[in-house]
Amino acid sequence: MPALRWGLIGASDIAATRVIDAIRSSGGTVTGVFSGSSDRARDFAKVHGLPNATTDLDELLGWEIDAVYISSTNDKHFDQACRALKAGKHVLCEKPLALDAGEAASMVKLADQQGLILAANHHLPGSPLHTKVRELVNAGAIGAVLSAKVAHAVLLPERLRGWRLGQGTPGSGVILDITCHDASVLNPLLGEPVAVSAVAVQQADWNTGGQEDAAMTVIRYERQGHPPVLAQTHDSFTVGFAQTSLEVHGTEGTIHVVDAMTQDTEGQVVLTNGAGSRTVDVDCSQDLYVIALKAFTAAVNGTGAPTATGKDGLMALKVALAAQESALSGRTVHLI
Amino acid sequence: MPALRWGLIGASDIAATRVIDAIRSSGGTVTGVFSGSSDRARDFAKVHGLPNATTDLDELLGWEIDAVYISSTNDKHFDQACRALKAGKHVLCEKPLALDAGEAASMVKLADQQGLILAANHHLPGSPLHTKVRELVNAGAIGAVLSAKVAHAVLLPERLRGWRLGQGTPGSGVILDITCHDASVLNPLLGEPVAVSAVAVQQADWNTGGQEDAAMTVIRYERQGHPPVLAQTHDSFTVGFAQTSLEVHGTEGTIHVVDAMTQDTEGQVVLTNGAGSRTVDVDCSQDLYVIALKAFTAAVNGTGAPTATGKDGLMALKVALAAQESALSGRTVHLI
Repeated sequence: MPALRWGLIGASDIAATRVIDAIRSSGGTVTGVFSGSSDRARDFAKVHGLPNATTDLDELLGWEIDAVYISSTNDKHFDQACRALKAGKHVLCEKPLALDAGEAASMVKLADQQGLILAANHHLPGSPLHTKVRELVNAGAIGAVLSAKVAHAVLLPERLRGWRLGQGTPGSGVILDITCHDASVLNPLLGEPVAVSAVAVQQADWNTGGQEDAAMTVIRYERQGHPPVLAQTHDSFTVGFAQTSLEVHGTEGTIHVVDAMTQDTEGQVVLTNGAGSRTVDVDCSQDLYVIALKAFTAAVNGTGAPTATGKDGLMALKVALAAQESALSGRTVHLI
Repeated sequence: MPALRWGLIGASDIAATRVIDAIRSSGGTVTGVFSGSSDRARDFAKVHGLPNATTDLDELLGWEIDAVYISSTNDKHFDQACRALKAGKHVLCEKPLALDAGEAASMVKLADQQGLILAANHHLPGSPLHTKVRELVNAGAIGAVLSAKVAHAVLLPERLRGWRLGQGTPGSGVILDITCHDASVLNPLLGEPVAVSAVAVQQADWNTGGQEDAAMTVIRYERQGHPPVLAQTHDSFTVGFAQTSLEVHGTEGTIHVVDAMTQDTEGQVVLTNGAGSRTVDVDCSQDLYVIALKAFTAAVNGTGAPTATGKDGLMALKVALAAQESALSGRTVHLI
């Protein structure tokens, strides 16, 4: 497939540690980087061997590029994505797509109108583990789905204890950071999220930012002709000694995914039903970001779909925002 | 210790399958049984070798007995317990103690005034697994407690698919049946339950009663000088292929209890901390109801305490009723 030429909007940690390598592994090239700071843009370009660096977004959009990867601060995603789409560029945008669902929805609409690919950089839905779970569920391996549980409680590394904890910083808090990822996995698996109820607290003594660092959420899903499904998540920045996991219960069996929610994993899928328990073969050798970049490239070339479309990113954001609102108000938030 | 002489109020399945044996194993004797139906009382007494049977509660209370075990239908617990306490009998009452917290609180108060033991027949808090978890937590094995999770999703046996599913039947639904047990374990472990949020649905095609058969609940706990704790439960009558478990996360480690919530178990306690994971030795050989009956007997003799006091039963009920109210109203229910 034709290689994509990329511009990076944001000289971020995730671009540096994950996405540049993934672009190159997917056959693409990185033309240059935009950052608000000229020093940062120049240094970043030098370190990563990028031909261009700019502090002018229009300059970047004028380069001979096919697509942009946006990993600026969350409050800038909406404006930058819209400008890139209007300039005819495909967009891979870090999650959350925007700070409110209306903005994210208009991004999705704009991409459709322009005939361009908009994808959210959720790394988990494309994981071979989760792809396998959806395959098993859709093939009826556990009968009608009844419930699901996500364990996604981790210890936030010290180097990341900045804006994520600040009450005033856009997109901060464990719900927009982690619950959002859970929803990116649960939504395509379980149907339509219709109601969200969440409780959030501040636990860590090192969390001086004031934003919630632990949350438990219940999401109700509906799907035509199926029983209602309950899903629960536990998301935390404060737990250092727990495995992440996904469990899905159906009328005929249970799927248990160990190490289901991490960036680097040799996770395991275990299927239990009337015949007993067995480990399902899954090839976890490929990097999750490489999978996402390859799928994006295929989508641009008309031979595939992103692992998380703009619509998927919008739905994940809707669930996370509903959880945040529910935690604040103490009320179940209905999505439809 | 002196043996207790017992009267049974209610010719129930649980008395027949668990409690009569447990009374005898604890050194006690069963003097007789009360049931609303004379046939049922007589047959029950015959099958279980009890000297007496009656349909008159005052007659039972006039027998030379020290204690009564109440396992009548839930709506009768309050009245029968109060009459027994007023007649000077110690009371072991099936959960829920009563149908509302006010009634349960007045039972607790009456027992105190009378100087009698009132205990709730929650079988789990006295389990060696849960006793070990409390010991570990109180000894600081996982540092400050942050969160806990209970998996208690089971498939309701066909023979029990009666009053538990009926909307009009007192004490029905998965929340009063199972969430109540979860709370009996979580409350003594985590501190003071202060807020409860729950979502409940009706999933099973065989559930024609109209009452909820699956629920997910979040409980917020507080304890002086500690971070706030979040606990989540998944309780269900509809899930046939899942293990029950309890997980407790602290700042310094995690405790994972496999098969934590069943009546008969050789469960396992695994402690994970900076030093790695290890299975903690627990003797699970003793029947949970025998443990409860022995503890009750010790309490009557002034040499111990019930595994679940009346106050514990009241607090478990408060959490379950709050979950039920929250599921109906879509609002977090505050307990204090």
